[in-house]
Amino acid sequence: MTQPQTAISPRRDEDFPEWYQQVVRAADLAETSDVRGCMVIKPWGYGLWENMQRALDGMFKATGHKNAYFPLFIPLSYLAKEAEHVEGFAKECAVVTHHRLEADGEGGLRPAPAAKLTEPLVVRPTSETIIGATYAKWVQSYRDLPILINQWANVVRWELRPRLFLRTAEFLWQEGHTAHETEKEARDETMQMLRVYETFARDFLALPVFTGEKTASERFPGAVQTLCIEAMVQDRKAIQAGTSHFLGQNFAKASGIQFVSRENKSEFAWTTSWGVSTRMIGTVIMAHGDDDGLVLPPRVAPAHVVILPVTPKPETRETVLAACNKLATDLRAQDFAGEPIRVELDARDLPGGTKNWEWIKKGVPLRVEIGPRDLEKGACAVARRDRPHKEKTFPLTSEFVATCVASLQEIQGALLARATALRDANTVRLDKWEEFVAYFTPKSAEKPELHGGFALAHWNGSAEVEAKIKDELKVTIRCIPFDAPEEDGRCILSGEPSKRRVVWAKSY
Amino acid sequence: MTQPQTAISPRRDEDFPEWYQQVVRAADLAETSDVRGCMVIKPWGYGLWENMQRALDGMFKATGHKNAYFPLFIPLSYLAKEAEHVEGFAKECAVVTHHRLEADGEGGLRPAPAAKLTEPLVVRPTSETIIGATYAKWVQSYRDLPILINQWANVVRWELRPRLFLRTAEFLWQEGHTAHETEKEARDETMQMLRVYETFARDFLALPVFTGEKTASERFPGAVQTLCIEAMVQDRKAIQAGTSHFLGQNFAKASGIQFVSRENKSEFAWTTSWGVSTRMIGTVIMAHGDDDGLVLPPRVAPAHVVILPVTPKPETRETVLAACNKLATDLRAQDFAGEPIRVELDARDLPGGTKNWEWIKKGVPLRVEIGPRDLEKGACAVARRDRPHKEKTFPLTSEFVATCVASLQEIQGALLARATALRDANTVRLDKWEEFVAYFTPKSAEKPELHGGFALAHWNGSAEVEAKIKDELKVTIRCIPFDAPEEDGRCILSGEPSKRRVVWAKSY
Repeated sequence: MTQPQTAISPRRDEDFPEWYQQVVRAADLAETSDVRGCMVIKPWGYGLWENMQRALDGMFKATGHKNAYFPLFIPLSYLAKEAEHVEGFAKECAVVTHHRLEADGEGGLRPAPAAKLTEPLVVRPTSETIIGATYAKWVQSYRDLPILINQWANVVRWELRPRLFLRTAEFLWQEGHTAHETEKEARDETMQMLRVYETFARDFLALPVFTGEKTASERFPGAVQTLCIEAMVQDRKAIQAGTSHFLGQNFAKASGIQFVSRENKSEFAWTTSWGVSTRMIGTVIMAHGDDDGLVLPPRVAPAHVVILPVTPKPETRETVLAACNKLATDLRAQDFAGEPIRVELDARDLPGGTKNWEWIKKGVPLRVEIGPRDLEKGACAVARRDRPHKEKTFPLTSEFVATCVASLQEIQGALLARATALRDANTVRLDKWEEFVAYFTPKSAEKPELHGGFALAHWNGSAEVEAKIKDELKVTIRCIPFDAPEEDGRCILSGEPSKRRVVWAKSY
Repeated sequence: MTQPQTAISPRRDEDFPEWYQQVVRAADLAETSDVRGCMVIKPWGYGLWENMQRALDGMFKATGHKNAYFPLFIPLSYLAKEAEHVEGFAKECAVVTHHRLEADGEGGLRPAPAAKLTEPLVVRPTSETIIGATYAKWVQSYRDLPILINQWANVVRWELRPRLFLRTAEFLWQEGHTAHETEKEARDETMQMLRVYETFARDFLALPVFTGEKTASERFPGAVQTLCIEAMVQDRKAIQAGTSHFLGQNFAKASGIQFVSRENKSEFAWTTSWGVSTRMIGTVIMAHGDDDGLVLPPRVAPAHVVILPVTPKPETRETVLAACNKLATDLRAQDFAGEPIRVELDARDLPGGTKNWEWIKKGVPLRVEIGPRDLEKGACAVARRDRPHKEKTFPLTSEFVATCVASLQEIQGALLARATALRDANTVRLDKWEEFVAYFTPKSAEKPELHGGFALAHWNGSAEVEAKIKDELKVTIRCIPFDAPEEDGRCILSGEPSKRRVVWAKSY
């Protein structure tokens, strides 16, 4: 059997959205379930999520946060407490109205009319209101502040056009919720957690991100300020990979989080919230995947190394397997980034080519083959996922063990460098409206997803300009970057004076 | 202020159920939320759960299981696929009927009639049916088996009389779901996971448990066989702390999990499921707590050691804190049971007695005080939570560091020994009905919870006998123990011949 030119069809340049779906399938990450909009996260996808969780959880704890758990259900009246908040979420809420089923008399079941709830419950789309109501009970004095809590949870936002990991009705996430004595502390917290996300994206996901503030129209419903990290993926669109919200006193007022201050006055607390979700898995796929499938940054890969025994003859099978097991043990004794190297040994009785391609598609950073002839030389055949699949090296096995950690570090670095180069090559400064339009106009009708990338252009701060550009070009302001130098210029559309450039892009 | 005789009021012997509620509160483990039946798990309670999760997760992975995630929602028709299953859960299901809210015209919100779901969705009370439907797609050949998957998730079973951790409408748990080629493999898996639970209960929770099989009336709805671990708590009642179900081919038939066998025939898979939940936290509280509050087995305690600086004078405060910080660092460098010692340093500006009592009530295994006078001697004052609170030792600080791991091991062992002694002292062999009745009759009308304990008595296998005893005495068969020797005898109620004794008790 000849291998297809690429393992994934279509290629990225042929049809990026369809390529994405095929990679999710080929890498065995997740699948749609029979429940509309809900996904099944398969072991390989969940393993990726577990590694992300562990890394983030450590960073949250290192910054003084503890985990807790709050109810899945939110009474309707709670959601309604903050006007903008309910406006933002009401259209996508799963609503629980009954607490019992009964026979419908036709052999089926129905919600029991007698068990109708007096107040419907909403399945949490986010937990500001229920957590706010709880904090209101916990806080009496400034001595009870700050409260620094995170929750790992599932949330539900009804989606009419779901896409695995990117937009699903149910998804997994973490939501940090903190309450503070002063505005400054809350603002510092908001920024601190954004920096945690930025560091995580760079050091674990190998993703360079723009950091900045969202414009009013893209803010979290009810927030005073929304900070975000924005990554570029390979179709040059932006994806919001994490947000951190300064909520001011809005939710404290709505929920009654009040305390007696050091000056013995009654004051409202200042709150924040911040979250990242399983959407990050989609981001990693689109940022690093290639035409052969998933490419995983080693620091979050469920397996760092897969060992593939080559056993053409029954009589050498046992010796080969013994050598493979020894290699696995030797590798697991090594530490990569503070954790033992994660090794899979694939001894399934399947053709070597089939197994090799499976692991290529799954994105494992290093593949090692050992066969009877390798054994004689004490060698193995090694392939790196960030290099073309035919490119192999043939080190002594002991040498491979000794250099494995360095190779993983190299791959991690190479992915970050590649993603950074892509972003930099597709981020331009634009000053003329015609150039801006041309930049964001698809290069061909068949591939509407291909366009320029990110544009740094001036904006006069007007919501109308923003709305007009969104309508005309489907381009939005991804963020007002923190580190943009102040610079006199003119708004890309209106020509009015502007003090700084913002990041424009099409987005997920 | 003089301390009350005990930190928790009422004492266990005064009112055990109320004592339980007070310990949950005093230890800051959890609280009821405004959502009926749902709890807020506070950081100290959640930290306990995280430690349980980490230990169990490691044991699941060591036995070849991987984690995955399945939808929160189950279509009504799925639940109905297995007749006994739906019968068992229909009465306690939260039902989602709408996917949008809208203004109700009176300033409030209501489920939007236009967004009524064609098929209602049930919030998962357990996931056999939705996971079964997924496995049906994954399995074609015997080569696709076994499937060994676990899920960490929240589940909802509507409770009319909720009690924190013991019975709540929403709780957290893990549910393992496996599918196998043969009956034997599935039965072996069922038993293996029960042994994992037994080991976990003994080595981590310091709980001796009875292991055995449930009678038909206590089986999981739809299961062929339910195995369980049953622990005794201090009011001598039983609590089911974990179950492992052999599901036969019932769910495979209901969901269509079919495969082509080695003999090229179409066969149904054999499945299992097994789970433990946040109920285990309630079990730990009731098994080990005392009249001063929670007592935690070190292996699951969120903190092993709390350091309490004694700083009566401002001028020595800094030196004391420096010594405490150094002690914390030295302790964290030590490994207890494969993990760094978990240390809390409580430097809050509160009276020493207040802080000390807080940590007693929270159940931290070791408390260490360091004050200016201790510093001069290089010593500290150490108290163990498993001993009376006034009992202290005064080792050199270096000596405390050197012996800390051994102390934690001792405490872990002491709690297991104490729980085992309690169980053994309150487990009797009974052969006469009058004795049986007397044993389970409350000793006083005011304390209906006090009674004999566990009874090992003969049973003829009749469901009627079982039902009659349950009605008359509120006593049920907790399990048919695995290790009970075959022994001729006569049924405790009917006098009919019986081959083995079963475990009878009142239960949670």
